[in-house]
Amino acid sequence: MSYITSFLDARNIAVIGASRSEEKVGNIIFKNLYHNSHLNVYPVNPNAETILGKQAFINITKVPVIVDLAIIATPAQIVPKILNQCALAKVKNVMIISAGFEELGNEELKEQIQKILDKTKIKLIGPNVLGIIDPYRVFNASFFNGMPNKGYISFISQSGAIGTSVLDSAIKNNIGISKFFSIGNAMDLSFPDFIDYLGNDRNTRVICLYMESLKQSQGKDFIDVCKRVSKRKPIIILKSGKSEQGEQAAKSHTAALASDSRIYSGAFKQAGCIEVDSINQLIKTAEIFSKYGYIGNKACIITNAGGLGVLTADYCSKNNIQLPMHNERVLSLLKQTLPKEASKSNPIDLLGDATSLRYKKIIDILDRENYFDFFIVLLTPQYMTDSLSIASTIINRRKPIIACFAGGNQVEKAKQALQGKIPIFNDIKDLCDAAGKIK
Amino acid sequence: MSYITSFLDARNIAVIGASRSEEKVGNIIFKNLYHNSHLNVYPVNPNAETILGKQAFINITKVPVIVDLAIIATPAQIVPKILNQCALAKVKNVMIISAGFEELGNEELKEQIQKILDKTKIKLIGPNVLGIIDPYRVFNASFFNGMPNKGYISFISQSGAIGTSVLDSAIKNNIGISKFFSIGNAMDLSFPDFIDYLGNDRNTRVICLYMESLKQSQGKDFIDVCKRVSKRKPIIILKSGKSEQGEQAAKSHTAALASDSRIYSGAFKQAGCIEVDSINQLIKTAEIFSKYGYIGNKACIITNAGGLGVLTADYCSKNNIQLPMHNERVLSLLKQTLPKEASKSNPIDLLGDATSLRYKKIIDILDRENYFDFFIVLLTPQYMTDSLSIASTIINRRKPIIACFAGGNQVEKAKQALQGKIPIFNDIKDLCDAAGKIK
Repeated sequence: MSYITSFLDARNIAVIGASRSEEKVGNIIFKNLYHNSHLNVYPVNPNAETILGKQAFINITKVPVIVDLAIIATPAQIVPKILNQCALAKVKNVMIISAGFEELGNEELKEQIQKILDKTKIKLIGPNVLGIIDPYRVFNASFFNGMPNKGYISFISQSGAIGTSVLDSAIKNNIGISKFFSIGNAMDLSFPDFIDYLGNDRNTRVICLYMESLKQSQGKDFIDVCKRVSKRKPIIILKSGKSEQGEQAAKSHTAALASDSRIYSGAFKQAGCIEVDSINQLIKTAEIFSKYGYIGNKACIITNAGGLGVLTADYCSKNNIQLPMHNERVLSLLKQTLPKEASKSNPIDLLGDATSLRYKKIIDILDRENYFDFFIVLLTPQYMTDSLSIASTIINRRKPIIACFAGGNQVEKAKQALQGKIPIFNDIKDLCDAAGKIK
Repeated sequence: MSYITSFLDARNIAVIGASRSEEKVGNIIFKNLYHNSHLNVYPVNPNAETILGKQAFINITKVPVIVDLAIIATPAQIVPKILNQCALAKVKNVMIISAGFEELGNEELKEQIQKILDKTKIKLIGPNVLGIIDPYRVFNASFFNGMPNKGYISFISQSGAIGTSVLDSAIKNNIGISKFFSIGNAMDLSFPDFIDYLGNDRNTRVICLYMESLKQSQGKDFIDVCKRVSKRKPIIILKSGKSEQGEQAAKSHTAALASDSRIYSGAFKQAGCIEVDSINQLIKTAEIFSKYGYIGNKACIITNAGGLGVLTADYCSKNNIQLPMHNERVLSLLKQTLPKEASKSNPIDLLGDATSLRYKKIIDILDRENYFDFFIVLLTPQYMTDSLSIASTIINRRKPIIACFAGGNQVEKAKQALQGKIPIFNDIKDLCDAAGKIK
């Protein structure tokens, strides 16, 4: 069994540095866990008798059970002492939330922790992390305020705040999450461990990484595990610290020693991983895969706006997405169904006055054809466009549909209606760039 | 005086093809104009006695005044006949909304219109257009449903629907517009005429173009006028039909004969224009310029998320945006003000527990410094982050601020509060790509 499983399955949990003051991280983490009635959560704080009505303990050795997981949210300076107490209390799994180690040049603190790890069997997540989240267990061992829906995307983030931002965005856009791990300085458990675990997690269909750096010593492990896992599940990576300016910034963030981006890109490719350019692309590429798997490289574009069709064709070309021509049978059905001014090529231009019925008829004709793999459905808010009704027309189809509703207020409700049901984009370039990554 | 001025200053306007049925373009255009009490609008329709209570005329020659502008929204087939009637009625300015000319292979119709133009003094916008809009006069001679706020961005679009999408998005994001022109097949008045006009329009600070193609005969005019105008106002271009697939699609849309994208890109560069990659980038680059002018190439990044700072530094490098180091005096102020764990480099990492007061203090320190040109303010929704209060801290500053609030529901209200006040982005890559275009 993976070490990671025992972190996520923890039932008896100590929060060391649990706090009564609402602005403290130790308070938020305690609250997030405390709300889950399946867990026994023990606050540890030498200066409090109770926290949220629960008896507090002076240190981890006084907790009446051997906890499955100790979460440390104290100042960095006392973390080595606390980690020693964890060893005394026979705790096997520890997560250090606290920041202020090698990323701030406190190499000595880091070394003290490393020594304790070396002589005990403690497995460590962190330090300098947001925490871990499993929506399937309503398990939030982090100071993120919220719980995403259950889903198939897992995310390993070296930055806690980028984690926060992705989780908040996932909640807003109704994108389901399987597991979330913030791994920070990754002093012990690191990318290879988490990827290995997620490779076997049946709720995870796609693995996302935000990476600042990888220790050189882990390079081989990383490539090996990615090679193995990426055969079954795509691993999508956003790597930062790729420029000199970015490298400088990374040093003071997670003590990352970023090196030449080409080395990383080469290794990712060798390991079968997919590299993306932006946080948005990371989320959207994962969303498309979690919904449809690999979508293939042949698209049929349906649009009520010729210009947007032209742009889309450009972006498809850039991303090696082909636009096959329709066969004679389909062409004759299109001719029967569409006004004569409508272009029956690919893109199919339904014209500006296209109703939801026209969208429906055309998708009905094409949905069972095999000469293309997925639909790109475009909509601009024209005077006759009932975008909400068109939205409901395109859900629950046989073929994958990815949609771009390009506009503002006039398409807002329709977009909201599609969220979580169909990958929906604001900008057509973003759509094609994401679809191109997962073909 | 430019021909275009007389289109926009029109007071007596005929809508030929004005319709009583709400789903007809001719109905929407008539209504859009009719709501403006400064205009006299004459519906022309041989089959109606009145339209919205206004007397309808059997044809343009029966309208009791010489109109300043005739708008034609009839089937394409009868447009030549109607254009002849316009000539008889001494109309000088005509806009043909109707589609169905050379873009559908109806070369003959096109030639008939061309002949009429040749022998009369009629100036033409169109055919195949959405229309024109001037928010300063609350003038909506189009079938777009809405009126953007007054502002400094003008937009010339070869695609009506991309126009619709940009206008709707501008309204939602509170981005002000000076003039909007949909030019469609641009049989007569074309890019050079509109750019020339906007070069002299005092409400226009930045000119945006969506272009599918330019007639070869207009190439020299285009370059000449752009060279002249781009010295005073940036001209930002989104060119489509750049790939073979896109070229195919463009042909059936506005009869554009797209050619090698490198030829266009070279010409744009030679003419001092800025080429962008996406609709979103077109809007956001224009927004930054309309707010701040050219922003320079030296940024100071302020973030509550180290990881996002690292990514931003990467994107800055890619876009040749420099991140200067702080001078000794500033550095010492930063040290006095920030927690010791906070990075005082560039990016400045305010740390995850940054309050709006911390953002305020740091911006106060830096706002009058001259070693950088603009701020990039980053925010992720962490447990202590009061994003709304941070939003109000960053408006009305001396130095340009561009912001990225990366998240979902937890930053939504703050983003809305910033719209129209500060260019605000969802994704940091988009921010840097846009800022890099207008430095």
